[in-house]
Order: sequence, then C-alpha cells, then structure tokens
Amino acid sequence: MRNLMYCLHIAFLITVFVGIGSSSDELKHETATKRSPYETTKVPSMSQKKKPHVPIQDQSYRYTPDWESLDSRPLPSWYDEAKFGIFIHWGIFSVPSFGSEWFWINWQGSKNPKYVEFMKKNYPPGFTYPEFGPMFTAEFFDPDQWAEILKSSGARYVVLTSKHHEGFTLWPSKYSWNWNAMDVGPKRDLVGDLANAIRNNTNLKFGLYHSLYEWFHPLYIKDKDNNWKSQEFVKSKTMPELYEIVNKYQPSVVWSDGDWEPNDKYWNSTDFIAWLYNDSPVKKEVVVNDRWGSGTTCKHGDIYTCTDRFNPGTLQPHKWENCFTIDRKSWGFRRNAMLSDYYSTPDLIKEMVTTVSCGGNMLLNVGPTHYGQIPPIYEERLRQIGEWLRINGEAIYGSQPWTFQNDTRTPDIWYTKGKGSKELFISDPVYAIVLEWPKSGVIELTDPTASGSTRVTFLGYAGAVKWTVSAPGIRVSFPSKSKVSNDWAWVLRLDNLRY
Amino acid sequence: MRNLMYCLHIAFLITVFVGIGSSSDELKHETATKRSPYETTKVPSMSQKKKPHVPIQDQSYRYTPDWESLDSRPLPSWYDEAKFGIFIHWGIFSVPSFGSEWFWINWQGSKNPKYVEFMKKNYPPGFTYPEFGPMFTAEFFDPDQWAEILKSSGARYVVLTSKHHEGFTLWPSKYSWNWNAMDVGPKRDLVGDLANAIRNNTNLKFGLYHSLYEWFHPLYIKDKDNNWKSQEFVKSKTMPELYEIVNKYQPSVVWSDGDWEPNDKYWNSTDFIAWLYNDSPVKKEVVVNDRWGSGTTCKHGDIYTCTDRFNPGTLQPHKWENCFTIDRKSWGFRRNAMLSDYYSTPDLIKEMVTTVSCGGNMLLNVGPTHYGQIPPIYEERLRQIGEWLRINGEAIYGSQPWTFQNDTRTPDIWYTKGKGSKELFISDPVYAIVLEWPKSGVIELTDPTASGSTRVTFLGYAGAVKWTVSAPGIRVSFPSKSKVSNDWAWVLRLDNLRY
Amino acid sequence: MRNLMYCLHIAFLITVFVGIGSSSDELKHETATKRSPYETTKVPSMSQKKKPHVPIQDQSYRYTPDWESLDSRPLPSWYDEAKFGIFIHWGIFSVPSFGSEWFWINWQGSKNPKYVEFMKKNYPPGFTYPEFGPMFTAEFFDPDQWAEILKSSGARYVVLTSKHHEGFTLWPSKYSWNWNAMDVGPKRDLVGDLANAIRNNTNLKFGLYHSLYEWFHPLYIKDKDNNWKSQEFVKSKTMPELYEIVNKYQPSVVWSDGDWEPNDKYWNSTDFIAWLYNDSPVKKEVVVNDRWGSGTTCKHGDIYTCTDRFNPGTLQPHKWENCFTIDRKSWGFRRNAMLSDYYSTPDLIKEMVTTVSCGGNMLLNVGPTHYGQIPPIYEERLRQIGEWLRINGEAIYGSQPWTFQNDTRTPDIWYTKGKGSKELFISDPVYAIVLEWPKSGVIELTDPTASGSTRVTFLGYAGAVKWTVSAPGIRVSFPSKSKVSNDWAWVLRLDNLRY
Amino acid sequence: MRNLMYCLHIAFLITVFVGIGSSSDELKHETATKRSPYETTKVPSMSQKKKPHVPIQDQSYRYTPDWESLDSRPLPSWYDEAKFGIFIHWGIFSVPSFGSEWFWINWQGSKNPKYVEFMKKNYPPGFTYPEFGPMFTAEFFDPDQWAEILKSSGARYVVLTSKHHEGFTLWPSKYSWNWNAMDVGPKRDLVGDLANAIRNNTNLKFGLYHSLYEWFHPLYIKDKDNNWKSQEFVKSKTMPELYEIVNKYQPSVVWSDGDWEPNDKYWNSTDFIAWLYNDSPVKKEVVVNDRWGSGTTCKHGDIYTCTDRFNPGTLQPHKWENCFTIDRKSWGFRRNAMLSDYYSTPDLIKEMVTTVSCGGNMLLNVGPTHYGQIPPIYEERLRQIGEWLRINGEAIYGSQPWTFQNDTRTPDIWYTKGKGSKELFISDPVYAIVLEWPKSGVIELTDPTASGSTRVTFLGYAGAVKWTVSAPGIRVSFPSKSKVSNDWAWVLRLDNLRY
Repeated sequence: MRNLMYCLHIAFLITVFVGIGSSSDELKHETATKRSPYETTKVPSMSQKKKPHVPIQDQSYRYTPDWESLDSRPLPSWYDEAKFGIFIHWGIFSVPSFGSEWFWINWQGSKNPKYVEFMKKNYPPGFTYPEFGPMFTAEFFDPDQWAEILKSSGARYVVLTSKHHEGFTLWPSKYSWNWNAMDVGPKRDLVGDLANAIRNNTNLKFGLYHSLYEWFHPLYIKDKDNNWKSQEFVKSKTMPELYEIVNKYQPSVVWSDGDWEPNDKYWNSTDFIAWLYNDSPVKKEVVVNDRWGSGTTCKHGDIYTCTDRFNPGTLQPHKWENCFTIDRKSWGFRRNAMLSDYYSTPDLIKEMVTTVSCGGNMLLNVGPTHYGQIPPIYEERLRQIGEWLRINGEAIYGSQPWTFQNDTRTPDIWYTKGKGSKELFISDPVYAIVLEWPKSGVIELTDPTASGSTRVTFLGYAGAVKWTVSAPGIRVSFPSKSKVSNDWAWVLRLDNLRY
Repeated sequence: MRNLMYCLHIAFLITVFVGIGSSSDELKHETATKRSPYETTKVPSMSQKKKPHVPIQDQSYRYTPDWESLDSRPLPSWYDEAKFGIFIHWGIFSVPSFGSEWFWINWQGSKNPKYVEFMKKNYPPGFTYPEFGPMFTAEFFDPDQWAEILKSSGARYVVLTSKHHEGFTLWPSKYSWNWNAMDVGPKRDLVGDLANAIRNNTNLKFGLYHSLYEWFHPLYIKDKDNNWKSQEFVKSKTMPELYEIVNKYQPSVVWSDGDWEPNDKYWNSTDFIAWLYNDSPVKKEVVVNDRWGSGTTCKHGDIYTCTDRFNPGTLQPHKWENCFTIDRKSWGFRRNAMLSDYYSTPDLIKEMVTTVSCGGNMLLNVGPTHYGQIPPIYEERLRQIGEWLRINGEAIYGSQPWTFQNDTRTPDIWYTKGKGSKELFISDPVYAIVLEWPKSGVIELTDPTASGSTRVTFLGYAGAVKWTVSAPGIRVSFPSKSKVSNDWAWVLRLDNLRY
Repeated sequence: MRNLMYCLHIAFLITVFVGIGSSSDELKHETATKRSPYETTKVPSMSQKKKPHVPIQDQSYRYTPDWESLDSRPLPSWYDEAKFGIFIHWGIFSVPSFGSEWFWINWQGSKNPKYVEFMKKNYPPGFTYPEFGPMFTAEFFDPDQWAEILKSSGARYVVLTSKHHEGFTLWPSKYSWNWNAMDVGPKRDLVGDLANAIRNNTNLKFGLYHSLYEWFHPLYIKDKDNNWKSQEFVKSKTMPELYEIVNKYQPSVVWSDGDWEPNDKYWNSTDFIAWLYNDSPVKKEVVVNDRWGSGTTCKHGDIYTCTDRFNPGTLQPHKWENCFTIDRKSWGFRRNAMLSDYYSTPDLIKEMVTTVSCGGNMLLNVGPTHYGQIPPIYEERLRQIGEWLRINGEAIYGSQPWTFQNDTRTPDIWYTKGKGSKELFISDPVYAIVLEWPKSGVIELTDPTASGSTRVTFLGYAGAVKWTVSAPGIRVSFPSKSKVSNDWAWVLRLDNLRY
Repeated sequence: MRNLMYCLHIAFLITVFVGIGSSSDELKHETATKRSPYETTKVPSMSQKKKPHVPIQDQSYRYTPDWESLDSRPLPSWYDEAKFGIFIHWGIFSVPSFGSEWFWINWQGSKNPKYVEFMKKNYPPGFTYPEFGPMFTAEFFDPDQWAEILKSSGARYVVLTSKHHEGFTLWPSKYSWNWNAMDVGPKRDLVGDLANAIRNNTNLKFGLYHSLYEWFHPLYIKDKDNNWKSQEFVKSKTMPELYEIVNKYQPSVVWSDGDWEPNDKYWNSTDFIAWLYNDSPVKKEVVVNDRWGSGTTCKHGDIYTCTDRFNPGTLQPHKWENCFTIDRKSWGFRRNAMLSDYYSTPDLIKEMVTTVSCGGNMLLNVGPTHYGQIPPIYEERLRQIGEWLRINGEAIYGSQPWTFQNDTRTPDIWYTKGKGSKELFISDPVYAIVLEWPKSGVIELTDPTASGSTRVTFLGYAGAVKWTVSAPGIRVSFPSKSKVSNDWAWVLRLDNLRY
C-alpha cells in the first residue's frame, strides 16, 4: 500500500450531479418528493454509473483498450453487495516484521535511521533483504483455518497480496525464479492454497493484490533511468505475471498498486484491463481498482481507492473502497506493535458503518506472521465484527446509501437502505445505525418521516420499541441495555417510512 | 509448571475447624452471632495461621531447618493484601513456542508424536534443544514497557521464571555456563533487567520462579540413578543457583517448582528456607510456595499452590494461590494458539473474584515471545483487568474473605470483606460481586443482614441504589446498564450490615 | 561442465588431411621432405585454419551470422601462444561442496540417492537449493591473492564460471535479480573484482565461462515443453546476460556451455558470435569455444573442446583445448575430497605436455571454497607447475606442434617446436620433453635427425650434455639427477636439427 | 596450546654435561667402567631416569601424591619407542577457523583487532562464541578414514584435544552440560568414536589432551578472584572431567595444558597423577606431560614439553617431546591459511630427525575442519612422512640417541642408534641421516670410527655403497640420485663401527 497521500478532487458538486445524472427510477421518485430542509447529501445510488453506449449484456460486446470504453463497464453486482472484505498483507516483509511492509525501501532506499539501526543491531553487516527469504517459513499456515477465521468475520471477499513492492511472488511465478514462495521459504503456492481453501470452505470471493512496480528490480530501474521510454520490466516481468495470476487463480478482484511513478501507457494497463474484461476467465465478475498509472487513481477503474483509509464521510459519485488496516502503523505484521496500535472493534465497526452509509466497501487489512498465523489480536477483532454482523448484517450487506447518510442533527447516527419488494408492495426499509448509546435513553432521528404504517424494530432485541413522531423525524426510546444482544453500534430498522 | 493434577484432600470440615481453631476476636464475634439457616462456608480469616510458639517479631528469633519451625512463620502481610500477581513464563521454550513450555521433555522424553513430527518437519535431523539457544533473540525486550503493561493490569506482584525445567537461566549464573541468557541468545541479564524496571517504574513486588529439577541435567539423572543417595546436582547446580538469585535479585517471592521426584531431604530444602527466613537479604518480606520435595505440596510453605489452576471454590484453611494461564494449553507462548485458546477477560475476572473470595491470590500467567514482546492479546486482557480493578479494586486489594464466600441462593455472587475502622466506629464493608447482570434487573443477596444504618452503593455508578430488606437478606435493584462504568462483574458495597 | 561423454569422430585420417588441406608453405615443405619410416603423426601446424575468403585484416570486414562465415575467422594469436589457462568453478554449488557442481540436478533432477541422503541428513525437510544462497559468504575472497596464485602457476589466462547451470550469476546481472552474487551471499561483483585484480596484477587474459541453459529456469523448461518453438528464456534471460557480461567485463574468452539440448537456432548463437566478432568491445582478441547448440561441439567455434578432459594423444586439425580438473571427481570444491582424488603435480605436467605437443591448450580447473579461498592443495599444484614452467616454459609457451608428437620408439617423450629466426638464420628449436627419468641414464630420441651444427641442451642444467648420433635419431646421456633443477618432466632443447 | 613462549634455560652443553654434570651414579659407573670399543652412548639412555627407591616392578608399589614419588616412575617403554605421534586440535574454534584455536580469548579477552574486526564484519552484533556451537557440524567425520590417514603417516600414537581452553568437551561430559559435542553441534561422542576407530583399525596408541583451565568459566574466574583460595572450578568441573575421560576412554597419554596460572596445589595435580599411576585403568602404560601447574613445566611429569615447538638441538637429560604444528600459525584449522603457512614435508622430516636424534618424540599437529575432514594438504604431508618412514623407519622407531647428535663437521647430518643383539654379538647399528644431498656426491661423517668389519648401507638403495676411512671418520660416496627411493633425508646405516 502506498503511504503517500494523494489529493482527491471531487470534480462536481452533488447537486450538479443530481441534476445531470438522475435518470433512474429511484431518483425520479426521490426528486419528486418534497425535500426536507436538512437535505444536503442526497445523491444517486452508488451502484449506478454512466450507462455504456452499447448494450453490454450483449455477449459479443468488446471493450477497447482506452479508458472511455473501459470506464463504461457496469460494476459486477456482487462487489457492491459484499460491502466488507479482508485484505491480507503477507510477504518477505513479514520476516523482519518491523516498521512496516515498506521495510526494504525504508531501510535501503530512504535510509530511515530506525530501519538502518534495526538491521545494524540484529544482523551481520551486508545482510540483504533477499536473505530474509529462507526465513519466511510459514510452517503454521493452515489455509482452512484462515478460511474459517475470514468467514467468521462476516467478510464477503478476500484480497491477498500476491506480490508486494518487494517483488516476491506468493505463487510460483515463471517470471520470478527463486524469488517466490515455492522456491524459497514456504515452499508452497500460498496463493493457490489460500484460493482453494477459501473456495472450498466459504462463499467468499477471492481477489488478488498485485504491485506493478518493484522498488529494486533492475529492469524497472533501467526503464526509469530511460524516462520510461523502454518497457523491459513491463514486458518481461510485471505484465506476464499479472496475466499469469489471472489465468491461474481467477481472482474476482485485481487490486493493482505501485503504479504511480510512470503513467498507464508505460504499464500497458488498458490493454490488460481490456483483456480482463473481454477474454479473461473472470471477465464476468472481476473488479479492478483505480491504480493503473500516474493520474488514474480516483479517475479510472471499477472502484476508487483514492488514498489509503479513504473515508470521505459523504456520499461519493463512484463506487469506492475504504482500505485500511487494523494496525494503525503497518499493513504487514509488526512484532513490536502494542495493543494501542490496533484499532478496537468499535473503531472498526464505526469505520464500516460510515463507509457503507456513504456507498463504500470496507477492505480491512490483517498482517499474518512469517510463520503463517493470523495473530489472535486480529482474529479477535474479525470474530467480533462477525458477531455484530450476524445480528446487524441486514443493514450492511446488499444495502444502498439512503437519501441521507448521517443524521442531520445526531451525526453519530448513520443510515443505509435495504431492499423491499415492489411486487409485494413492501417498501425499502431504512436502517439507522446508532454508534453511541444515547445517555438519555432516547434518540432523535431527524431525517426519516413516519407514515401511518411505519414500524420500528431494534435489531438484536426481541421486544417492542417505543417511538413517537417528532417534528421533523422520529423519536425512539431505547430498550434496557442489558436486554440487547450486542455491545456496539445498535441498529434500528424503519419500515414503511413516508420517505 | 507441572501438568499433572494432584488430588487435594481437605482433611477437615469447616465447622470442625471453626470449633477448634477460633481464638481470634473476629471469630469470637462471629460464633456469637446467630447463624443464618444458609450459612455453610463460614471459616476463619485467611491471613490467620497457627501462631508461632515464640514471638517472631523478636529480631533474634531464628528458624530451624525443619518444617515445624518454618511453618510457624507468619505470612508477610503484603502478600495477602496483593491478591493479584502476574506470572511470566519465558525461556528457550519460547523459541519453538509450540505445544507448551514442556516442549523438550515432550519431544525427547515422552516422544510425543506431535512434537516429534514438528521437529522432523521443521529442523534438520539431529537438531538438539540447546541449539534453539541462539534463536532466543529478545531483540524487542523493553523491560520498562513490560513494567508499564504489568502495572496497568492492577497486579501487585510479578513472578518470572528465572529457570524452568530446561535449566536455562535467564540470569548469568556462574553455575550454568553457556546455558544462560547472557552467554547465549538475548545476551543480557533478563532477570536483573526486569527486576530493575519493575522496581524503578512501579510499586509491584518482584518474585522469581525457580525449578529445582532440570529434566536432562546429567548430574540430576546420575543422582536419580543413585536413588537420590548422591546429591551432586543439588550441591553443584540447583542450590548454588537458588542462593545466587536470592542474593543477587532479592526476590519477594521464591516460587519453587520441579520438586516432586525426590523428597525435600534430597533438595536440602529446609536448609535453604531457614537461611531465607533467618539470614537472606529478603528475610522480612519473602514468601515461598509449597513445592520443596515430594509430599510438601499443600502441606508446607508460606502459600499453598496444590495444583495448577487450583481454585477450590471454598474457603481454605491456609493461604493459597491460584496460578493459571491465559492460554488454556500452555504457560509458554505458542505461535499457533488461536483466539479460542485464550481465556476472555470476563473469564479472568471471574477467576480472580472467586479466588479472592475464598482467600486465595491469583497468579495469572502470560507467555512472552522469543523476541521479547508480551503479545497484544495478553496485553489486552491485562489492561482490561486493570480497568476493572481501577473501579472495583477496593473489593479485592487488602480484602478478606467474608463469613460467606458465594451467595447461598445466588451462587454467581461472591463476597469479600473490606476494612473499616474501630476507632471511627466504622464497620467493615462487605462487597457483593455480581458476575452475571440480573435479567430481571434485581438481585437477591441472601447472606447479608441489613441494619438500620445499612448503605448500599454500586461501584462505578454515581447514582443512588434502590434496595429493600428481604427475608433473609437484601434485594437490590440494578441501575440502567448504560449508566454503569464497566461491562463485567459489578460490585455492590454494603456498609453497616448487621452481620 | 558436462558430465556426459560425447563421441568424437575424427572424420579423416591424417594422411588424407595432409593430402587435401595442405596448401600452406610449411606443409609443402614438409610433404617434400623424405619421410622417416616411423613418421606417423605429421600434420599441419595447429594455428592454421582454412583461410577466410576475404581479407579479414580489413577493418571493414563483417562476419555474417552463419557458421561458414564465423568459422572463417582466424584464431587470435594470443590464445594459441598461451597454452595454459586456469579454469575456476565457483558458485552456489560451492556451498554444499559435496558430490560435484552438478549438485542441484543430481539431487532434485535425477534424485541420485547419494545427494538425496546428504540433504536429508543435514538439512531440514523442504530445504531448497536457492536457500544455499545466503551461505555463499566469500568472506575470505581476496582477488589480489587469487591473481598472485594464478600468476604463480605460469598460466596465461583465466576462465571463471560467470554463471553455471544453476543460473546464479557471479556478477550483478539485471536479468537474474536476487539470484546473483551482489544480491545474495557474497554481496560483491565477483566477476568484476576478479577481472580487475587479474588485469591490475598480471598479464593474464581474463575469460568467462557462461552456461546457456539453466536446469531449473521455468522459462527454459517452458521453451523445452514447447519443443523449442518459443524462445522466452533466450530472449529474456540467457542472451541478455551474455551480451551484458561481454560489454561489462570484456572477456578474452567466452567459454560457452550447457548448449546441448536444443540447437543453435534456438539459442541465436550465430547472431551473438557475429556481434562478438564484428561489434563487441573484444572483437579483436576474443576466443569462443564450440558449445553453441546441439551438434556444434567439435565442429564450430574458435576452439574445440569436444569433451571434458579431451586429450586425444594425436595432433588435431583444429585448435583445441583440454579442460580438466585437478579433483578427478568434481569441478566445484568438494569438502570431503581426499588426497587421492587430486591429481598430483607430475600427473598435471604430463597432461600439459601431451596436450601442448598435440596442439592443444590445457585449461586446468580449480574449485574455490564458499568462503572464498583457493584451497592450499590446489595452490600447491599451481605453484609447482609454475616452478616447472619457469625452467621449462620455453618448450610450452608460443610453441607449435612439431612434425612428430611423441617419440616413435620412446612414447613417453613428447615434442614441441619453438621459434627461430629466419632473418638471423636461426632454425626453430625442437624440444623433447622426457616424462620419465631414464633408468639407464640414456635416452633414445628416434625422430630428430642431427645436423653438423646440432646442439643439445638440458633445461635447468648448467652443464654440457653428452649426446651422440644414433640411427635413426639421437642418443642423449642424462646428467646426474642431483644436479638438475626440477623433479619432473625434463626438457632437452635440440637446436639446428637437420629436420 | 599455549602461544606464549617460555624461556628454556638448558643449563649445560652436552659435552659440558658429560664432563661436568656426571655426578650421578649411573654416569660415574659408566665412566669408571672400561669401555667396550663400541661403547659410544656417552650419555644416559633417554628412557633412563632416577631409579625409584623401591622396586617399582612390585605390583604393590604405590606412588604418593608428591612430585618426588611421581617423578620416580620409569617411563613406559612404548612411548620412547614410538618417536612420532599426531596431535589433533579440534573444537569450536574449528568453526570460525580464523586466527588460531585461541580465537575466543584473542577476540574477547585481549580484544585483538584482527579478531574483533573479523567478528564485526561477519556476524551480527552481540554474537557470542558459544553460538558457534551449533555450527560445529562434523557431518563428514569418518573416524575410520581418519584412522587410516593417521596410520599412513607412520605415527605410533595420536593425541586428541578432548577439551581445549574454550571448555567445550568433545565427549558427552556430565560436567559440561550443553557445552559438549553430544548436546550441541556434532551430536556424537567424538572422543569415543575416534578412540574406537584407532583401536579397531590400527596399532596406534590413543591419547588425550586436556586443558585444566577454561578461559571464561565463571567458577575458574571466581577462584582466580579469590587468589586461588577456593577450588570450586577444580572440584566441580575440571578434575571430575579428567577422571571421567581416563575412566571412559583409557588414554595412553594424558597431555595436560592450561595449567600455568595457579600452581599444582590448586589443581590437585599430584592427587590425580598418583591415582593415574596407582589405580587408573591405564596405570601401566599411561604417560603424562609436564603441564600441571605454574612451575611444573620442564620439571615434573613423564615427558617434558617445555614450550611449543621445543627442539633444543642438543641431547636432553629427560625424555621430551617436540609438539608443533604443520600450520606455522595455528593449531586449529584456519580457512584462510595459504600454502606458505604450511611446513613442507622436507621441513617436517627434518624436524622429526633432529628431534629424535636429541632424544625427543615429535608430536605433529593437524587441524581438522568443522565439518570433520582432515584437509588434503595435511593428509599429503602425513602420507609423505609415512612413505619416508616405510623406507627409513628403522632409523627412527625404537632408536636411541647416539654419542653424537649431529655431525661435528657436517651439521646437517644427524645420528641415531638402533638396537643390535648382545647374544648374537651384533653391535648396535648407527644411522646417519643426511638432510641435504651432497653437491659433490660425497659426504664426510666425522664422528663415526670404522672398524675392520664396518658395513655401510644406504636405506632405499639396493646397490653397494662406496666408502673409505677418513681421518677422522668415514667418507661415503652417494649413489646416483635417480636410483634411490626417496626424495628427502637419506639414511646411511653404519654397522660394526668401532665407536
């Protein structure tokens, strides 16, 4: 993952967007209704994008290798419905497991004194990063166990670092001889083994992270020294590998990274994506992110990742993902991380709720150890999120942003919208997710307007909920805290709202 | 720690004991009071022992090296008041960190297939346990950080494995050349460094675990083959080391172990303890446990540890300690432990409460890694216990068992007794510790009898508590759960009870 | 080096060859002279080859990438004059230093039980060959010291294995990332460091061995599986490297190997050699051998190496090289080689003498250790050969095969021919090299015919030599052995022979 | 071996000794008696020592633990007859194999910059010497092969470093737990395995070197700090080990070392030697040297070793041993030793000859590698000495010093005396060992006087030797060098000399 922060320029105002883009039924309906005075963040549903100019359901449709064509592809629906995925950063950096997964470049690129001292103190002079390879033992790696833990979190997809900026491939790449997990260290196909375990034991989608650049690859450096006029690295290393993993492991997500130094022409990115959309074995369901060369981020691709821990707090005009890591300071495992470095479970639930309310997915990162274990402190957070989702998942999975994201007057309350049924005359339920238990025992929902048939239920609480119409909105009395099923982020389901 | 379980036969009924032993003021008072029909576990205070035959306050008093004399020594008061200590199992076993700290003997003694396979799979043929030594790197060991974590738990003492059954000494012993932490591995005096950090940064007492036997020491084996008629091992190895650590580190606890094959004569245990009580630098405050030779456990020594995780559930006639470990399966760190292997914080608080109610101390174990870190999953539990104690500690520290241990009708409620002031006519408060939040919102305390001036408060809740006299006992209405400060094990303080 | 033995079919009898090929002046002269009855091995001078069809001294001449053109290039004269070079086999195989430099393929290719057992006994299961990399420490590698030792041997050129079949490059190749001596193990440019030391300290030519194939390279295997119809390996790996080392280190010898599975079309060999001859920085002096694809050996290239330890015992029609190794069983260092495995110095001198007599060069191999030392047992042999050459070198360096190679009746005597001066009317001296000290003190040289001015001297002996004309030949009395300067292979110089 | 050089003051010249020093009974007796014409050994036989005051053949005779008694013991005859033994220095120092076997103390004791730099450059900071232990792999150690090599040298005994100053025992000592070859590194009983192989395959005697002190043993340092008033180290470590190896391996030589800081009282040396002579399993044949405490060297013990490479060049009044090492700079193997660091075979033969002529034995040292091989450069020297001894051994084995050691006028000629037979009226043959081949072909032996029946033979030459009487002495014409069987140090046997 890139540490650098990139500016995000949201190019148009929400109202402008609404004015232009709103041709969908839902929007028509919404625009027809009277607006509440507090209405500020009303936007189109997140799964909507500009319609392609040709009927893409047509099997014979072929994308051309340019952004205009590629960006016209509709997002495969599974991704937007999933809402929550797990990111896994694993590699040679898991051996020193110090500082971060940017260990190598921090040590030998920028000569960060913290890393330099660490090496000086603990290793013989001249020790090189590749010499960590044999120590990446992974002896306790049990992919079925990982699959069980990942599933328990309630996540719907997994993204594994098939190759990070260090260039070490977790699969036996033909193009990375003796610098891959079969030849050195684990001596197994970590990508294949995890893919199989995930697919055999769970319904999770399996995706792959792939770094385009490799900090120290001599051909990359050579191309760079040539001002990107040569493409030796692209042609003999990084692109062959990208095709290789797609063909071999059929990932549902191709999470590109390390793209930012040269532009997408250098990388041949659009060629690759066109192949991916047209001809690859995953053409129907694959999702790519937006890191395909300098200037592409937040502009092109199926999903926008803008920056790490991208959580804008407002509804976004394009499907986006908030990728961030449980250890605040690193994506890879750190042996000397303390408890205070890890986000707590309520922190993480809050992050998920605010992300989903604004139309994003959360890709939450864990860093396994070099010996192949997901440390219990991560496991605990994953299982606790899973417990929360078992009770409250209907407010998350398959949801859509509602007219309002967080409550106008009680901003700690966030909304999502579920799916009713037109055939059965069941309107879409709205979920109000309350991050803080109200001290008074009563909350004011400003934005929903009750109808005569409105019904309020409290997820994880069997009893009836007392509520009254307020002006504007609804006032809900919380039940006794000792009777509810979970400790964090309580969800009110609102059926049959007027709007 | 010994894995074997030893039967504990409590030899006398409580009522018999009360009849015979009760010469203290408190007991007189108690026997004078009318018994409730449910009274079943009324016993003398735990800090009471048989009085020594001579005035031990006399500085000139000297113990003789026999159990009768040694057992007459009064328990130093700090220990009973502390209630909660942290045990630390650290050693060469932290390198494989697989199975348990009994790795060596399980592998090469009993040839346990799990261990044999692990070694066969991961190490070259013929690899020996001592060859793990150089891998015990401890590069992240920061004793000040440890001290801060230990202090945060609310514990009042620490016991470190200075030497486990493997024989590796964590200090630079003169008698364990090249098999100690200065010569091999960490290259520092782990015992001294931690002792200093604890003493410089906290008020915790510092104690040392020491294994008398060493599984594979050739001189121990030789003595054993001689049916304990020779004492080469005792004289050239284990006893010199025990004197060495007492003189060098002045531990407040000497936690002996590995004693059980020969008897205390072989070990020269009573000589050592007599020296410890009479002449050692810690004679005034040192506390020893009861593992000093076959047959001594639960019979001799300042504190009884009977078995691992000794928690009898009833008041004991002698000061005891419940030593047990957060990882259910091991005292040393295990790299492949999963979350389910670790006790949760509520589990641990429950263990502490039930132990203290019955007069014991809890010695809770953590297993640091070979690289010197207390893993976050342990740290989390320690800090959470500490948070609980910051609110509820007055029910634990310096408390004494009350007349009743757990409630006669609501057995999930456990009692302790605090200290009032005779001078100020303040009676001893009684604490009722409620492990489960009452579903009805109301609990029945059967055993306390209210007086006209009885006052009930809820620790960590600022408001007034509603209660009524019940027959027998007291009925207390719990406040709203959302208003109380902690999530587990709520404490009611009862002042001015009739009895 | 290839272990397999290839049949060598010398397609024409010497007499036939003489009849057909003899258009040079010398040959005319020879065929004109009367043959002695014992004349059996009379052949053209070794440095003669078919004349190119164009005047190659013309700087503008360009070779075309086909064998007919390439084979027409005259051999650069330094090579034929040098006679004696040192081969150095160094690489990752020097780490296990067991069996031979074919360790990897014997272990994991053919599963030779000796190697399989060795690994099973000494390494953990799953240990891979690349994991030997970090153990190739080379901490004692002192290139100046090597240069001094190599020079002391009297050798005139050195050939280092820049990359053996294992694929590990001893230089920091851009095309062998993390599998080269800069990234892993020695962390230095072994090729460059040795090249510089040789050039700074000696007059020796510096050459490089390079294996075309790499046993386990996945792209090589892929091409092979494609029946050599793809050339991914050639284009992205082995050829870029070959150009890289020529440009970077300007080797005087390019000693190709590992060519034999596919043919030279697959390898693009003729393109490379044409570049080498036309445009490379070493175009004037470079010499290549004959291993450029299946079927090329002993047919194309500047020098023929036919098989390992190729020593036919008869004069050859094409310049050839006898490459062989001091350790009879391995080219790489073997830790468990015993004394009997090493050829003795007299063995080696004999090999050199017989090779040079028949027009070959001797390329004698040594195997340094993984820690960078040329073991003393090798050093001893090298220095002893050097001592011999300091006395007898005039019979070797710059010599040419004589009319006869070994003596017709005393086959242990071998002849070479030196260079006289036509201007000064000095005829070419002939050297008779006597491998066994004659028991009788007298030797019979059958083939030389004395003239009136013939002079006989004994190299390394200051006194006059007694000799008489014999029929046929010359009879020489040896001096007292205690007066001669060397212990093995005594050289008689014969001046002014009749023929 | 000790590097420090000790002054040796040989107090009298041989001639002076004979004239002046002969006040002993034996000498008086000899000078008083009429000389036989052949009586030439004008000094006491080397195996002669002061007679004990009691008949020591008496089985019941017991030595008392004082030097007067111990020194009265006659030297077991095998030792004087053997003349030539092989010393083997092997231990943890064979792992770094740098500098010398004094690696540890040079590095961490005297902080020799060469060693400090070596460690800094090649190992992580804080690396300790005991951490070399697991690297002492000995995987190629084949004791039968060693036995064959040792036997081939012609040596008659072997002395192995059972424990050097580093304290690491090559046998599984009960007193050196985890710092011995069974627990760490080789995982075998190197002492026992070699002892068995020597005894099963050869007639060589097997002896053991043992260092009394251990540089860094904390108990030794403690005793030293106590000014040798405590003996903790002696009693719990070094003496138990010495008894252990004698009982377990029954060495024919106990070669003590590391004695020099405290005196023999501290070590309890005389107790040990008395036990060795009186009660040990090797009491009949054991031989001890003279290193048993400060001041004992060259004064007490069966054989005097005065200094390393002790070769006084004159006849000594007490049996002595010249222990020295093929590598001039180290007793342990050095990986970076060059050829010039090794003595050549003629050097070694010269050393043996001069030593034996003066009544000494030569104990020639080799240093095996950490992987268990005797390097070929050593093997070569050993086998070459063996070849020499197969021809010339009768001048060495069982010989005695003659009246003259080296020739009065040709000092490069050294004499020994063989054993004739009084019963058969065969006088003792005298051997003249000629180190340099005479340039003139003729040598002058000044000291032997021919009789009428004198016979001169040349060992390894079948023909008759020409000689004439000279005045004084004998003039011998050497045969043709090409007819003699060996290249170095030619032996003339002189029978029936007048004296």
